[in-house]
Amino acid sequence: MKAAILVNQKKKLIVDELDLPTSLKVGQVLVKLEYSGICGTQIGEIDGVKGEDKFLPHLLGHEGSGIVEKVGPGVKTVREGDSVVLHWRQGNGIQSEPPKYNWNGKTVNAGWVTTFNTKAIISENRCTKIPANISKEDAALFGCAVTTGFGVIENNAKLKMGESIVVFGAGGIGLNIIQAARLTSAWPIIAVDLFDNRLDLAKKLGATHSVNSSNKSYLDEIENILKDRELDVFIDNTGNTSIIEMGYNLISDQGRLILVGVPKTGENINIFSLPLHFGKKITGSFGGECNPAKDIPRFIKMMQNGLWDLKGLITESYDLENINEAIFSMRTGKTSGRVIIKL
Amino acid sequence: MKAAILVNQKKKLIVDELDLPTSLKVGQVLVKLEYSGICGTQIGEIDGVKGEDKFLPHLLGHEGSGIVEKVGPGVKTVREGDSVVLHWRQGNGIQSEPPKYNWNGKTVNAGWVTTFNTKAIISENRCTKIPANISKEDAALFGCAVTTGFGVIENNAKLKMGESIVVFGAGGIGLNIIQAARLTSAWPIIAVDLFDNRLDLAKKLGATHSVNSSNKSYLDEIENILKDRELDVFIDNTGNTSIIEMGYNLISDQGRLILVGVPKTGENINIFSLPLHFGKKITGSFGGECNPAKDIPRFIKMMQNGLWDLKGLITESYDLENINEAIFSMRTGKTSGRVIIKL
Repeated sequence: MKAAILVNQKKKLIVDELDLPTSLKVGQVLVKLEYSGICGTQIGEIDGVKGEDKFLPHLLGHEGSGIVEKVGPGVKTVREGDSVVLHWRQGNGIQSEPPKYNWNGKTVNAGWVTTFNTKAIISENRCTKIPANISKEDAALFGCAVTTGFGVIENNAKLKMGESIVVFGAGGIGLNIIQAARLTSAWPIIAVDLFDNRLDLAKKLGATHSVNSSNKSYLDEIENILKDRELDVFIDNTGNTSIIEMGYNLISDQGRLILVGVPKTGENINIFSLPLHFGKKITGSFGGECNPAKDIPRFIKMMQNGLWDLKGLITESYDLENINEAIFSMRTGKTSGRVIIKL
Repeated sequence: MKAAILVNQKKKLIVDELDLPTSLKVGQVLVKLEYSGICGTQIGEIDGVKGEDKFLPHLLGHEGSGIVEKVGPGVKTVREGDSVVLHWRQGNGIQSEPPKYNWNGKTVNAGWVTTFNTKAIISENRCTKIPANISKEDAALFGCAVTTGFGVIENNAKLKMGESIVVFGAGGIGLNIIQAARLTSAWPIIAVDLFDNRLDLAKKLGATHSVNSSNKSYLDEIENILKDRELDVFIDNTGNTSIIEMGYNLISDQGRLILVGVPKTGENINIFSLPLHFGKKITGSFGGECNPAKDIPRFIKMMQNGLWDLKGLITESYDLENINEAIFSMRTGKTSGRVIIKL
């Protein structure tokens, strides 16, 4: 198998051949990967935003698609030949031991799921079977971007029809949040981002308005769009504390501030807490609290029924060999939608 | 003022002139009505489905629109000249004493809201101010049909994107339930009714499938539409106990049965209760648990923003003099949408 290995923080990934373990343990599933997405989380791991990383060297990636090649003892929810989505939140089945790989005599660690690799041993509860006729490229995004985005709307924001929403940050997750807000008939759906190419895509996917936050008067622009309407929901995808504070002040007395982006260690928000007694709410999202085993089949059926599609969301595709270029493209904001790695 | 008076159960309403009280009490609002809808509830009152009626003779109607002519002491949420929706669920403001009218020396009773009358004294908490530029004909339906239908989806069924739903009974409330299910991106949305004209309208408003329940194999038809998909939500608008029981059996182990139609006194449902321990839910709806003061402005804004419209929902219009004809039309199923009385 080939994989992108994180050997040192803040360095490029090393793409090389690794050896799979010779046998599968209880609850493990060997998957031949076809596609993987790249999530901001992996960039955070490379950059070491959470501090020292005790697991180096290790594999990466938490949304992918592929075909089951073999199942270990006890596995019941998938079998050889099944098409599967790989996801980081727990679904059905056993949580197995994570695998270890051999790299020229060195041990390479991995979590319950990794996707920047041509094959991988995945914990049963990180695989969900999908219909064989779904595009595997689309399917990869159900591992995180889609389920998190839709879950943020359903489970964290609990958005209602006709409520107003600001989505700050229109990357892979943000665009899916916008799509879900449209499917819930919110209005207005205000997308905010630094990059016009992302904002254009946001409007295609359902934003009713877009605001470029590199413009100094962007807050006035948001307030002009809202006019006499209160802001029900503000979603932060940036983890930037000054944006979170701004969102807290912008929402109505009964409004909900939802934190999706992860702040850097040591960066605090500074807010007046009294409004929390009278109705303002702050909620941190953990993958949109989605339930992959139930939500992935539901969202796929919605797509098959023509209620929405992923067209336009995948804007770039790279081979595994060029994964460092893909990551560079994401960092610069050149990427408007989601980057896919073909395995 | 002119009004339709219920003098005897199971008889036609009598349309005649009444005298208004000479002054307004605390929390009372004098409204010049423009339009009223007719709800199945009023037909139930006429038919005496709840048994003896101690308030006869009395006025009727619980969804309407008009202009405030005068406000009594303490009223703060509306004032002279305001456009208002009249509704039966409590909104903001005082709950006043209900009025009494004089009909050739006899007292005629009335509740906190009545709408089958050209003028009426309404309790402040049954009036909600609306923008002056909304069609008053449309506005009348926000007093019950729209807010109940939308509330059933949001507050009772708590419907999620991509969930499956059967709406049994596609009258005024049912059609709004269907519209709200569409706005929530449910799929499939299966409308069931005895009358094809209603089913045609249901499909225009968002049903993905329709089934005529006068067809003996209608249950097979529903199951064929669902195929391998489970039924998440069944909404009963009929109050018919055998339909409620069928819905209970049709929903999935985690499904929700929502009771909107009111059963006749003494008619019981007969169900195996064990599945209620493991996830099935039965919920009775009380006007969709809507909050008129918050929900009416929200749904009106959604309409103004082009997310939906009432076009096609109002299928017949009558003058107050002909209200008995309107009621007859509703009983026969000739009416496909909502009947409006012009006042």
